[in-house]
Amino acid sequence: MRQDHIISAKHLAREDIEAVLDRASAIADDPAAYSERHAGTLLGLMFYEPSTRTKMSFSAAMKRLGGDIVDMGPVEYSSVQKGESLADTVRVVEGYADALVLRHPSEGSAKMATEFVDVPLINAGDGAGQHPTQTLLDLYTIRENAGLDDLTIGIMGDLKYGRTVHSLAYALTNFDASQHFISPESLKLPRNVRYDLHKAGSSIKEHTQLDEILPSLDVLYVTRIQKERFPDENEYREVAGEYQIDTDTLAAASDDLTVMHPLPRVDEIEHDVDQTDHATYFQQAHNGVPVRMALLDLLLGGDQ
Amino acid sequence: MRQDHIISAKHLAREDIEAVLDRASAIADDPAAYSERHAGTLLGLMFYEPSTRTKMSFSAAMKRLGGDIVDMGPVEYSSVQKGESLADTVRVVEGYADALVLRHPSEGSAKMATEFVDVPLINAGDGAGQHPTQTLLDLYTIRENAGLDDLTIGIMGDLKYGRTVHSLAYALTNFDASQHFISPESLKLPRNVRYDLHKAGSSIKEHTQLDEILPSLDVLYVTRIQKERFPDENEYREVAGEYQIDTDTLAAASDDLTVMHPLPRVDEIEHDVDQTDHATYFQQAHNGVPVRMALLDLLLGGDQ
Amino acid sequence: MRQDHIISAKHLAREDIEAVLDRASAIADDPAAYSERHAGTLLGLMFYEPSTRTKMSFSAAMKRLGGDIVDMGPVEYSSVQKGESLADTVRVVEGYADALVLRHPSEGSAKMATEFVDVPLINAGDGAGQHPTQTLLDLYTIRENAGLDDLTIGIMGDLKYGRTVHSLAYALTNFDASQHFISPESLKLPRNVRYDLHKAGSSIKEHTQLDEILPSLDVLYVTRIQKERFPDENEYREVAGEYQIDTDTLAAASDDLTVMHPLPRVDEIEHDVDQTDHATYFQQAHNGVPVRMALLDLLLGGDQ
Repeated sequence: MRQDHIISAKHLAREDIEAVLDRASAIADDPAAYSERHAGTLLGLMFYEPSTRTKMSFSAAMKRLGGDIVDMGPVEYSSVQKGESLADTVRVVEGYADALVLRHPSEGSAKMATEFVDVPLINAGDGAGQHPTQTLLDLYTIRENAGLDDLTIGIMGDLKYGRTVHSLAYALTNFDASQHFISPESLKLPRNVRYDLHKAGSSIKEHTQLDEILPSLDVLYVTRIQKERFPDENEYREVAGEYQIDTDTLAAASDDLTVMHPLPRVDEIEHDVDQTDHATYFQQAHNGVPVRMALLDLLLGGDQ
Repeated sequence: MRQDHIISAKHLAREDIEAVLDRASAIADDPAAYSERHAGTLLGLMFYEPSTRTKMSFSAAMKRLGGDIVDMGPVEYSSVQKGESLADTVRVVEGYADALVLRHPSEGSAKMATEFVDVPLINAGDGAGQHPTQTLLDLYTIRENAGLDDLTIGIMGDLKYGRTVHSLAYALTNFDASQHFISPESLKLPRNVRYDLHKAGSSIKEHTQLDEILPSLDVLYVTRIQKERFPDENEYREVAGEYQIDTDTLAAASDDLTVMHPLPRVDEIEHDVDQTDHATYFQQAHNGVPVRMALLDLLLGGDQ
Repeated sequence: MRQDHIISAKHLAREDIEAVLDRASAIADDPAAYSERHAGTLLGLMFYEPSTRTKMSFSAAMKRLGGDIVDMGPVEYSSVQKGESLADTVRVVEGYADALVLRHPSEGSAKMATEFVDVPLINAGDGAGQHPTQTLLDLYTIRENAGLDDLTIGIMGDLKYGRTVHSLAYALTNFDASQHFISPESLKLPRNVRYDLHKAGSSIKEHTQLDEILPSLDVLYVTRIQKERFPDENEYREVAGEYQIDTDTLAAASDDLTVMHPLPRVDEIEHDVDQTDHATYFQQAHNGVPVRMALLDLLLGGDQ
């Protein structure tokens, strides 16, 4: 690992990504070999926003490596309420831990925080900004199920506001992937994202209908279309309904199609899909543990 | 242990109960022998409702066995706020832990959750439903102090709404216990509970006064009468006052009487009782640790 | 350690203080020697009020000694909401842990709690009362940076309401320290504190201006002046502005001046000071870990 901190998926080179995914595979194959590897290490958790899966899987990851956590707890119960700046809080908390995980509502906050600390810091989501460990577990799930090269992936739903989707799309430019973006007109990829993907030499196509591209996909990555994005509820219902998946939809898909979703889902994927071999979203969530173990292991010097 | 999950005290057979209580005794006698028994095991805590003693004692139990916890935290800070179903949340969290503890406000939720997970799940209270680990620690406390067979127990207070009381009463039908229920008319045992107890062949009697039965009791189990159950406060005060215990009340009791309470108490038991040998309610709370250790040990394969 | 509980800095004799600070130095010099010393020990955290640094550093301290925590969590999610008394809650929680840390809004609550428990209890702040572990880490920081004997210290800011300041001043009477108190007239040391310090034979002086005493100081301990103490905001601004520190202010200070602050700061110390060698407040916060490790080690029998 050539990095001291993990701030953005955009700044992860192919070799960094592969180092993490390879380590994650090794861990998943033989977790017992890693169970005491970072005994005595404390990971500081600083979550300024609610989180279930990210926080729990970081906790599980550190503990599965033999270490432990020190949790700042909900921000309502912290010194932040007394007006302390983020810069001061991270400088205090780094004295209690060997590495930090930060989720904060302000874009750029994780990057800023790294200027004040000497221990490794991992961005666990900074507002509309980056959430690189989500991207890494997405990539790991794709690699395990479909492979990252010679990949045809469909990314569907809210492509305008979804930070998860943008990070994943950038990261896939490191690989030989054909990316298909499926969304209503009003929720298309932002122009700057499209520009960056083109510039990175990626093969991308945009669609408003899933059915025209579904049969050729190896992976379908579904995201939620949020009601709040629409001026009135009727319009929302009409649009959202078109981008819902059920077993009927998937009849036209390849038998090997991998269906992913960052979760939580509301009704983008009907429950009848859960029973099929396509459903990979719970496995995807579970992959957060080996991937975060791998990242912690590499940042904490586990490759020495 | 013949069960994969612990959902209801009603479904615990005598041999299951005794397996847990015997293991709890063994643990209490020699805790050091168990202190590394489940090293590396992670217990997922999912508390959708406030809890002090249940949550802390499950944490302590897992840690006293050498394991650790992964805590979902207060539900206000979780994905539940984004509309995720309980079925989805448990399927995610099972990937972070080796066993789950669930407290949820909806009756039947724990049973439902077991249909979605492969790891052992323990019901830590589902609304008006079951709270089997409370029953097990109650049984353990009775066995340690008075014995479970040839037992005369008085159960007093709110017998209509108290899930703790119903579970305990059902569980005691597995043993040779005479059960006396003491309550105001308006808070008597529900007819269906009475019916089930009769059907199970249990010897039960109902009373409105404690004094007529107190001298013959081995155990007096006191529960709180809640103000909210009464249409007006005066009526509440009058009724509640009759079912309060102090040292004067206990003058008529056997020297060996064991007084229990699931806690928290408000004023059902006066503080002067705390100093007497009758007072067993704090020990009862503490017994939550060895009993939950025993249950975890058995569910996690500690009998192999 | 001759004490079973740590309730007040006022009751710590010089030899107790030195025992803690010596142990903290030993731990800081060789943390690995202590990393398994209290394996299996559980520390119960009972925080009835928000806290970041105290709670996190107690967690880190217990874990750095090989032990673990059992956390009551935010009081909103506990039985306290059901009307349980503090005396009952501590008696329950002591059954889940080997030692307790209590923060509570009521002065005297920690002392009261010790009457109900058999395990060691540490006061982590009781309202306007005591916060002895803050005092110990302050003393440790002073000793490491300037020495505790032959010390000239300035304590500045809100001297009327600041419990941190009163505890520190009392504790310093055990050493050969000249204490200078710098504050606006309206926030001077309370008469009873002044009286007690005189009675203890301490050399104290009061000032309204920092500049007259700054050059002779070894340590400057800055505390926050709270807006709420002033009848109108203009008056607050004027007063608070006079007691802010920046690099210009410090031009007149000794090169060796140690600047401390209990944190969180708002704007009492400008950020340009952070870059200077004077700035010791983050190190001071970090010292919470070895000092609390030392205290736990001594209370838990680490000197045997």
